[in-house]
Amino acid sequence: MDKTKLGADAFLYPMPVSLVGAMVEKRPNFLTVAFCGIMNPHPPIIYVALNKAHYTNAGIKENSTFSVNLPSAEMVRIADYCGLVSGRETDKSEQFQVFFGELNTAPMIADCPLSMECRLLQILDFKMDEVFIGEIWQTYSEEKFLSEGLPDPRKMDLMALTLHDNNYWRLGEKLGRAWRIGKTLKEETCR
Amino acid sequence: MDKTKLGADAFLYPMPVSLVGAMVEKRPNFLTVAFCGIMNPHPPIIYVALNKAHYTNAGIKENSTFSVNLPSAEMVRIADYCGLVSGRETDKSEQFQVFFGELNTAPMIADCPLSMECRLLQILDFKMDEVFIGEIWQTYSEEKFLSEGLPDPRKMDLMALTLHDNNYWRLGEKLGRAWRIGKTLKEETCR
Repeated sequence: MDKTKLGADAFLYPMPVSLVGAMVEKRPNFLTVAFCGIMNPHPPIIYVALNKAHYTNAGIKENSTFSVNLPSAEMVRIADYCGLVSGRETDKSEQFQVFFGELNTAPMIADCPLSMECRLLQILDFKMDEVFIGEIWQTYSEEKFLSEGLPDPRKMDLMALTLHDNNYWRLGEKLGRAWRIGKTLKEETCR
Repeated sequence: MDKTKLGADAFLYPMPVSLVGAMVEKRPNFLTVAFCGIMNPHPPIIYVALNKAHYTNAGIKENSTFSVNLPSAEMVRIADYCGLVSGRETDKSEQFQVFFGELNTAPMIADCPLSMECRLLQILDFKMDEVFIGEIWQTYSEEKFLSEGLPDPRKMDLMALTLHDNNYWRLGEKLGRAWRIGKTLKEETCR
């Protein structure tokens, strides 16, 4: 074993790519966020971590709602753009068809294959980022992105991000079914 | 726009795949976890969410350390296996070459292209899961997985998970550089 120490950094690969939506100063705003994840399955709890300098944060606090929109691979340019310009200077919502759901104040992107509207539960305060933890309240997609009523990753064609090399990726080869492909190994080791 | 409501569920795609390590009853144990993410870049803060029934949780609490190991695509069977069997009944550490780092009590998997050892900062308590939030203290990889001193996703060949269809995936086509591919759109909209 010849391990190299890389120090302390955000070395988690890959990350989902989301566009976090909030109403800021009465206008829908969207920010590219890869620091997001699930914290509890039922009820579904999600977090998004946003640098404190971002324009979006105040809108989430004001309305206690936010959305998490997943852009498709063909939206890569616009998804990246939402992380390059601030809603303070530019109305990014003009780039999208925006809709609202049951919570009324969480703007969502109709162009995205999947959108979740969330009710804010809690904020964690770290050195650079505020972590907004919310309950996923309702989810919106379209029939063309579903298989047997559930989101189909191939049909949605979502993106992943890797940091440090800073690349967006398509999902590639299927490696196997979760909670299944390891079963043969379980049978071997447990007998 | 013809949106379909899917209800409230953990509809985030894709997720990273990690093997979370902890010392439990003086033995290294590893659990497959996809509910993980970065919460702050500097210092790097990471969380892992574990169902309360899991054997690993007590070990993280006892030692206030844990590790996050990223398995490569060729480790898909063993990675899935670690989510199928409990450390209560089976010593999963026998499947791996285990090593320790600077924190001494966070067991890591030498077979994984990348391992982070973490110092526990905080625990959030949700209905089904406990969320362990930790500071990434040190990171271990090998020269063969790096490009210009940083982890190279192609060389590491890590996995992603999608829920509901429950599949493990390789990363596929590169779609473009983050903080760059959207720049042309920025130039168009900001002039």
